[in-house]
Amino acid sequence: MSLIVQKFGGTSVGTVEKIRQVAEKVSKFHGNGDRIVVVVSAMSGETNRLVALAQEMQERPVPRELDVLLSTGEQVTIGLLCMALDEIGVSAISFTGSQVQLLTDDSHTKARIRRVDDKKIQQELEKGNVVVVAGFQGVDEAGNITTLGRGGSDTTAVALAAGLGADECQIYTDVDGVYTTDPRVVDKAKRLSHISFDEMLEMASMGSKVLQIRAVEFAGKYNVPLRVMHSFQDGPGTLITLEGAEEMETPTIAGIAFNKDEAKVTLLGVPDTPGVAHQILGPVGAANIEVDVIVQNVAPDNSTDFTFTVSRGELAQTKEVLADAVASLNARELRTDDTIAKVSVVGVGMRSHAGVASKMFETLSESGINIQMITTSEIKISVIIEEKYLELAVRSLHTAFELDGDPPSKADD
Amino acid sequence: MSLIVQKFGGTSVGTVEKIRQVAEKVSKFHGNGDRIVVVVSAMSGETNRLVALAQEMQERPVPRELDVLLSTGEQVTIGLLCMALDEIGVSAISFTGSQVQLLTDDSHTKARIRRVDDKKIQQELEKGNVVVVAGFQGVDEAGNITTLGRGGSDTTAVALAAGLGADECQIYTDVDGVYTTDPRVVDKAKRLSHISFDEMLEMASMGSKVLQIRAVEFAGKYNVPLRVMHSFQDGPGTLITLEGAEEMETPTIAGIAFNKDEAKVTLLGVPDTPGVAHQILGPVGAANIEVDVIVQNVAPDNSTDFTFTVSRGELAQTKEVLADAVASLNARELRTDDTIAKVSVVGVGMRSHAGVASKMFETLSESGINIQMITTSEIKISVIIEEKYLELAVRSLHTAFELDGDPPSKADD
Repeated sequence: MSLIVQKFGGTSVGTVEKIRQVAEKVSKFHGNGDRIVVVVSAMSGETNRLVALAQEMQERPVPRELDVLLSTGEQVTIGLLCMALDEIGVSAISFTGSQVQLLTDDSHTKARIRRVDDKKIQQELEKGNVVVVAGFQGVDEAGNITTLGRGGSDTTAVALAAGLGADECQIYTDVDGVYTTDPRVVDKAKRLSHISFDEMLEMASMGSKVLQIRAVEFAGKYNVPLRVMHSFQDGPGTLITLEGAEEMETPTIAGIAFNKDEAKVTLLGVPDTPGVAHQILGPVGAANIEVDVIVQNVAPDNSTDFTFTVSRGELAQTKEVLADAVASLNARELRTDDTIAKVSVVGVGMRSHAGVASKMFETLSESGINIQMITTSEIKISVIIEEKYLELAVRSLHTAFELDGDPPSKADD
Repeated sequence: MSLIVQKFGGTSVGTVEKIRQVAEKVSKFHGNGDRIVVVVSAMSGETNRLVALAQEMQERPVPRELDVLLSTGEQVTIGLLCMALDEIGVSAISFTGSQVQLLTDDSHTKARIRRVDDKKIQQELEKGNVVVVAGFQGVDEAGNITTLGRGGSDTTAVALAAGLGADECQIYTDVDGVYTTDPRVVDKAKRLSHISFDEMLEMASMGSKVLQIRAVEFAGKYNVPLRVMHSFQDGPGTLITLEGAEEMETPTIAGIAFNKDEAKVTLLGVPDTPGVAHQILGPVGAANIEVDVIVQNVAPDNSTDFTFTVSRGELAQTKEVLADAVASLNARELRTDDTIAKVSVVGVGMRSHAGVASKMFETLSESGINIQMITTSEIKISVIIEEKYLELAVRSLHTAFELDGDPPSKADD
């Protein structure tokens, strides 16, 4: 008998009919003797409706009251899902974030979970009930309603799974698993049966938007096995664990990730002295602009070039906040380019395979693609290339690292 | 400095624009230095939308989960009203029924209030905040969300006013007060400046549907002064207190109430022995049919006639459940009539004025109206007459008891 936490997002519970289908799926697991906790989001469109109401009232709604408003979305879903379960003979009970004392800090609209009181849930599971919990919401020490921000329901599910010591946390979504790369770009992309938390983080942060990074980090921290599955199709999905694939013949590379939302900023001819990087990136960070890749080469003389990337929407602001630094550093030129993209090969296996980098560069070279920047980490190598070569690069690398499979079956919703 | 509880119903908070107007009204009182607690209902239409969703899922929704669903309606309003107040510079904080620990029994969808924990509210009032509380909802001892059923928000307001020892509980609605009778029937109907709880109960239960009976009873029990006011017009409204009007020249009669939804049931020739009334009304009560007027005359021989009234919609069912009693009592005939109506004169002043009854009967007689049944209580006299004479009777009595005033100004919404 397993304890499973299942999370269904907004599109999976978007209509009464879909909620019925979710109830059927939950009922199957419950019928197998598993103990089930279900976490749900607001019905798709509902959160947008509530945000629009709030903004009609106030351009910048009071955060505490916005949370009071937004948390009603999930509360509607938990009530409806319990009704749907009751209708097919499965006894179920719903809880809001406040009722299960999902305690958070007091940062309204982007609260962080502190701890979960699992007593109530355990009691109901022991009675044989399916327990349905509202995702995305919690309560602070003073009893104020909080919400967790983007991807909050995934995080709720992982937190409950960690607190309850669940055997598995299943995230139901509109794809049937995690792929070696985006199937819209490479039609031979394959579903992975296993992937590690670290690999998933690299895949998720670079465009494979199946899971929220925050939930993956959380699951990794508490070692909660995560499984990505399709809401309305059967299938094993992709299991995400500490180790990733356990087969003997582990493929070196898990997948090819990419991101088009990158713009490059280069300061030419800045002094090669301590403190320069801080003088450049300090004002950028202070303006809350997120920096992705940073590259600085060894300098042939006492000056050097400093390059980094930001998301395209923040390029204009980046140039503004850099004006002072450019002047005080006496930089020769500030050059920017928003026609670039990033491609990465990701895999825990590359730790012990020095040949991955050379194979990657060779493949891109054979396709006539120039590499503008390179960065590496333990489990990934990323290159910045011209945007127009992105699809070609991803397809070439997918083939070169032997990731090609049969084209996946299309999801039916 | 007064402490005032203000309650705004669904039509008063039906749109973002109307919520803004409510905020303006609240702001005026707050600006005068009064401490203000506001109780709000769901935006009009919202509760119906949620009920429809639930019934699409389940013909008879699980009551516990229906309460989880329905309570979101008021939660949306409290958030929006606090935003509207913040927008005009009034600091406000919202609370759900659960957050203020409005404790009820566990009768889902029709819970009864047990007690209110006013600590949180007092703390916020002392900080100078307007406190906005979700009406209609509470929480049972186990922490389950409950709702109070019809008129629940009025009841919430009165309960909070009682708990907080408020100086006044203002119920805002779409009329500017309580009238001597229905202005749609008598255009000379006058707004009453004062009325007693007892009189209000008699007026409310017989068609003047301004306040829910339950809230009036509650207010009377805890001696909370209630004031009925118009949401979007200025004016003193009608104050409802234990004593009613305090002027020296108290009018004998507060108003004329009436009810068309009455049907008469008569059992002719039943034995005049103990237990007969119970044999007749026992099965009616067991079928949850509400009986209004009951009349039994002294019998000239050992048989008598027994008459009572029910609402018209329950007449058919009443006849069914009486079939056995009619047989076992060997009644001569079961006669029914659904073309009747009830007219009542109401007033605490009549306790000391024996002439009220004779004046009422004289007035009806002068208008050629036959009286079918008569019942009396300490503060009212009711008669059953043919329905077609109802308007004539109400107008004649309104004039005879000197209640006529200038035609009221029309409400502007």
